[in-house]
Parts: sequence; C-alpha cells; structure tokens
Amino acid sequence: MTQAPVPRQVVVIGTGLIGTSAALALRRHGADVWLWDRDPAAAALAADLGAGQVLASPGNPARPGPGPADVALIAVPPGEVAAVLAAAQQAGLAHCYTDVASVKALPLARARQAGCDISCYVPGHPLAGRERSGPAAARADLFLGRAWALCPAAETSGAAVAAVTAMVTACGAEPVVTGADSHDRWVALISHAPHVVAAAMAAQLATESVPPEALSLAGPGLRDATRIAVGDAGLWTQILTGNAAPVAAILAAVAGDIAEAARILTEVASIPGQHGGPAGPPAPEAGKGLTALLEQGRAGVARIPGKHGGPARAFTAVQVVISDRPGELARLFAAAAGVNIEDVGIEHSPGAPVGVAELSVRPEAAGPLITALTAAGWPVRR
Amino acid sequence: MTQAPVPRQVVVIGTGLIGTSAALALRRHGADVWLWDRDPAAAALAADLGAGQVLASPGNPARPGPGPADVALIAVPPGEVAAVLAAAQQAGLAHCYTDVASVKALPLARARQAGCDISCYVPGHPLAGRERSGPAAARADLFLGRAWALCPAAETSGAAVAAVTAMVTACGAEPVVTGADSHDRWVALISHAPHVVAAAMAAQLATESVPPEALSLAGPGLRDATRIAVGDAGLWTQILTGNAAPVAAILAAVAGDIAEAARILTEVASIPGQHGGPAGPPAPEAGKGLTALLEQGRAGVARIPGKHGGPARAFTAVQVVISDRPGELARLFAAAAGVNIEDVGIEHSPGAPVGVAELSVRPEAAGPLITALTAAGWPVRR
Repeated sequence: MTQAPVPRQVVVIGTGLIGTSAALALRRHGADVWLWDRDPAAAALAADLGAGQVLASPGNPARPGPGPADVALIAVPPGEVAAVLAAAQQAGLAHCYTDVASVKALPLARARQAGCDISCYVPGHPLAGRERSGPAAARADLFLGRAWALCPAAETSGAAVAAVTAMVTACGAEPVVTGADSHDRWVALISHAPHVVAAAMAAQLATESVPPEALSLAGPGLRDATRIAVGDAGLWTQILTGNAAPVAAILAAVAGDIAEAARILTEVASIPGQHGGPAGPPAPEAGKGLTALLEQGRAGVARIPGKHGGPARAFTAVQVVISDRPGELARLFAAAAGVNIEDVGIEHSPGAPVGVAELSVRPEAAGPLITALTAAGWPVRR
Repeated sequence: MTQAPVPRQVVVIGTGLIGTSAALALRRHGADVWLWDRDPAAAALAADLGAGQVLASPGNPARPGPGPADVALIAVPPGEVAAVLAAAQQAGLAHCYTDVASVKALPLARARQAGCDISCYVPGHPLAGRERSGPAAARADLFLGRAWALCPAAETSGAAVAAVTAMVTACGAEPVVTGADSHDRWVALISHAPHVVAAAMAAQLATESVPPEALSLAGPGLRDATRIAVGDAGLWTQILTGNAAPVAAILAAVAGDIAEAARILTEVASIPGQHGGPAGPPAPEAGKGLTALLEQGRAGVARIPGKHGGPARAFTAVQVVISDRPGELARLFAAAAGVNIEDVGIEHSPGAPVGVAELSVRPEAAGPLITALTAAGWPVRR
C-alpha cells in the first residue's frame, strides 16, 4: 500500500456529527468538500460551519463537477449505507467510497446484494462520537488520535484502501485495518454490549419506586458508569440489530454472570444470621463466586488502554486544593507553566468554596511540578 | 436537633482511606484526633501524614485520656463494625460512636445482638471513595460536598445524632438522614449493583479470546463505563454480601433486561436477510423492545444529579484546541482569567500534537469566555 496524498476532492453524504466533523477536518487540509444530506437544512448548517459547499441536487446527490471526486464519505445510519452506496456509484460520484457505520459485515453484504462495485468500496468505522449529535455538534478534531477501523473486502483494490487511509489520517485518526467480521465482534465487545449493559443498569433508576433522595446519594461513579447510555435510542437499535449475533452472545454471557451474582446473593440473604441473626462473618464460601467475578472485572478494566495508548496508570497525579474563584486556575497553571500537564481533572462539590484539581503528569515530571507549585504557595498532595 | 460544635476529641479506629481522610479533615478544624489500626504501620503512616497521634495500646484501642472522647469513628469493613463497636464501648472510648460501612442494616442488627448501647451509636456512611485505598491515598477534602448518610435507630439519642452530624459537617460532607433499610435499598441501586454490572461487563474483556487489537478500538466511553469495577474484590464481596437481598433484587432485574435484549438480538440474527440476505430495513418490530430499554436507560441517566447538584447539562461547554506543550494551559487560563471555570476536561489523543480543552462554565459566562479567548487568539468552539 503506497502512502497516498490527502484527497483533494471529497463528497460527504450525510452531514450529521460524523460527516460534518470529517468535512471540517478535511477542509483544514485544503480539500474541496461537497456536502449532501437528505435534510437540506442539515447540509446548509454544515456549510455555514465551514464544512464545504452544498451539493445542489435535491434528490440523490449528483456529481459535483465534471469528473468524479477522489473519495465519497457515506455518513448515514447502518441500514441505509448499501442503498446510498449503490446510488452514489450509479451517479459516478467518486473514484472510491467509504462509510462510517458502526457495523461492517451487514452493509458489506447488502452492498454485494445491491450489485455495488466492491473494488472501490472500503467499509470504515471511526471510533469517535459525542453525547450530542447533528452538524452543530461537529468538531474538526473529533477523530484526533481515535482509532478508525477500515475493513477492506477481498475484492477491494489497494488504491482504494490507500486513498481512504489517507483521508482517515488527514482527519487525525489512527487507521486500524481488519476484517469486517472481526471488527463486528470487537465493537460488540467494546461498544455495543457496554451500551446495552449501561442502559439496563440506568433503566433501574427510572422506575417510579426510586425516590429522588436515593439518587441524591449518587456520586461520580454512577454518572461515569451510565454516561454511554445517553445515545439516541433509535439509532442505537439500528446499530445493535445490525450487529445482532455478536452482541447477543456477549449480552447473554453478561446476563448469565449477573444472574449468577444475584443467585449467590439471594442464597446469602437466606442464610440465618446474615440479617439480624447472631453476629458472624458473612458466608465466605458463598461469596467466592462473587469475588471471582469481581476479580475478573478488575482484570478486564486493566486491559483497556489508557490515555496516550499506555496503561491507565502511566501518569502520576498531583492534587492541588483550589478555590471556586475566577482566575484560580490561571494562577495554578502559571505556577506550573514549566511542566507538561497531560490531563486535568477537577473535583468540585455542590456549594463548596474549594475543590481539588488533579494534574496528571509523566512520573519524572511530578517532582518538578510539586516543587514549582509548593514554591508558589499551593497546597499540594501527590 | 441542636447545632452541635465540631467535636474536640475524636478517636478514629481503622486508618484506611476513609478513616484517615476524616481525621485529616477534623484536624483542620483543630480537633484532637487519636488513631488506631490493627495494623500499627497503617496508624503510624496516618499520623505521619498529620492525621493525629497514634493510640499506643497494641490490642484493642484503649481510652486515650482521662475521659471519653466526643466521638469514636469506626472505619473498618462492614463485617467487623459490631465487634469493634462492642469493644470500644466496653473500653468507654467515647460519648458517641459512628461507623462508615457502606451497608447499615446488618451492622446495626449485629450491634444489637452483641449487646451494644445503641442510644449512643449513629450508623453512618460517607458516599465518597477513590480508586486507591489505604492511608496514603487519604485526602482532607475527600468528603467535600459528598453525601454522608446517617441512619439513627429508634433508640439513638438526639445528642448522639447532633454530635455525629457536626463531625460530618466538619468533614465538608452533606448529612443525609434516613433509615438503615432505605439506605441499604438506595445504595444497592446507586452503588452496589452498578459495581457488579460494570464488573460483569469488564470481565468479558479479560477472556483469552479477546485480542489486544480489539481493545485498541476502545474509547473513553468504555473506560468510564467500567472504571467503578476496579475496587478491591474482597472488600466489595463483603459489602455485597452485607447488603445481599436489595442488591440481588436489582441484579436479577438487570440480568433479566439484558437477557431479554440478548433474546431479541438472537431472534433478529436468525431472520433471513439480516446477514447477507436481501437488503431491507432491520426488523423494526423485533427492535421495539430494545428501543424501549434504551429509552428507559436514557431516562434513568437523566435522573442522576449532575455537578453542583443540578441537572448534568446546567453548564455550557466551550472547546479550545490546545497543543501538547508545557505552559499551554497556563496561557489558556491566563486568557480566561476573568471567568469562573466550573470544570475542565482535556481530550488528548495517543501521540497527537494537539488536544481539546473543554471548559465548562455557567451559560451566562460562555459569551464573555469566548470573547476573551478569541481576543487572545485561541481557536474556540462553543
């Protein structure tokens, strides 16, 4: 595969969050971008944001100029990819085509069924998103450092892969080439099943029997654990049904483990002395299966790559107590200006006059940072 | 309940993360704090950190001075609370007693069984923690703005509740008074069940059949969704078995919902045309149950109070592209120095030269912030 230049002419079909973000990124590289969406207002908004110019054709998108564009990026929901690809190829829109659907085997199979030319089609999937959707939420840097899976079929040409890879790289993403089937199994595990699991947990919070007081006890752990469940339910249903078999297999395993944990705990609850009976240690035998599941969970979390691709604990955290005043962070970062801070977290509590800034730095930078902050009078804790 | 003064003399039994953090907070209010742990090294480390002075008695803690302390804070695992309380009361350690176990009905029942004096015992539970444990991870501000549940029994005296409430308030926490049974049902929902659910999902990542490439596709969503599963498995088994019935009920419901989602998806996968068959929309009827679960999940997430106790979207986010250089954040915050920034998130990608700082501000501050940053030459996106 040769290193292809950034595509000069790109057509983006579907100007939602993903399509518009890619268009913005490609515009920064000087590419000419044409925008089309079946909702003309969405395409017009994307154009207003600087993502390119609207393709005038009111029905299916027609070729923007005298010749085909380098790449057509099809950023529509999974179930619509094949039909849009077929129409775009019929119009001779581009030399090669890619899509962004989060499932890959199904659109590829349907594209074959629809008689599409697979030699110039590179199924793709950027692993990026936001809680918000639509062109207004688009960001040129949405894909920065994120994986962007490319799943060329056996008949896909090397030239098409090279052109789409160049486009992906221009968006700031890291291309990860794999087969459509393994892609689908992988995203079932790292994205689709976790979405359903988080939703099922969060659904328990929505029942009428749960008073607001119960939720007032909730901390950041619960918020983090359920945040992914806020995605659009209709789109997610399409994603999940489009990757049905791999997701079902993982969900069945997770449901089995949770049901087993429930069974163990029901058994524990039924042992006399556990609640209100004579004092004694909680049934250690019964708890063994539970401990094993929790240990397995810890091992799983440890396998998730952290920031900068390294393990999650590759940075040292330095904590500084800050007050809830304008300019406080400016003062803090001015004192730390000689150190490269990799990440910042702020814990701040309802109504409290102070919070804690946690500055993550490479381990070798922790000493100099603490010295600099202490010298400037900041209360520091490593 | 009268507003009691901050306790002047406190004994902390168990100098782990919670006990030492409370001790540090109380020391800031000028309280005399005595520390005891069955591991003398842990108590000595807590004392070195400024949490108080070590109680010399090598066996059970003995009264530090001529009279009882105002409060004894028992910060030991749930299964040990009753025995420690009984011994402490026998030694006449304090006028009143509280604990920090994350389950409440069980320690209270066992304390009654052990013949403890319940009139001076206020079962408690601070809703705060960290991924790290032990005295070295302690922070005086650990409880700032967090809820701290207090579950007085029918026989608990108002004076004991007032004294423990004053201690909790001095730690910076918000006291939430409720019954032990409702506390246990609430934390089963917002903490204990989510822990098991996250662990069960994360456990799927730890199987040998999952290649590292699969995890290389993972983004922050998966990290956030599984982070709570990193707690100590042994301690969590004790917490879960100590609150077995309420946790089991929620887990059974969650397992049922996930199993039903798996069943729906298995059915979808078996419909001809879904994979490789003729093109067509994914079975909308079958997906309905799935969409309903996802909608219910969204509704549940929306009920979780956000930062500063308000809804999660009470702040406006302003995004700024920053480069991965020392001093960049100092420059940014200097430009924003006139605005009170409520939260900062940094998205930075493996090896990328730039990242995105997301500054959360009150909606009315977004305009001035954007104006200030733009004037200073920062590329800003609201």
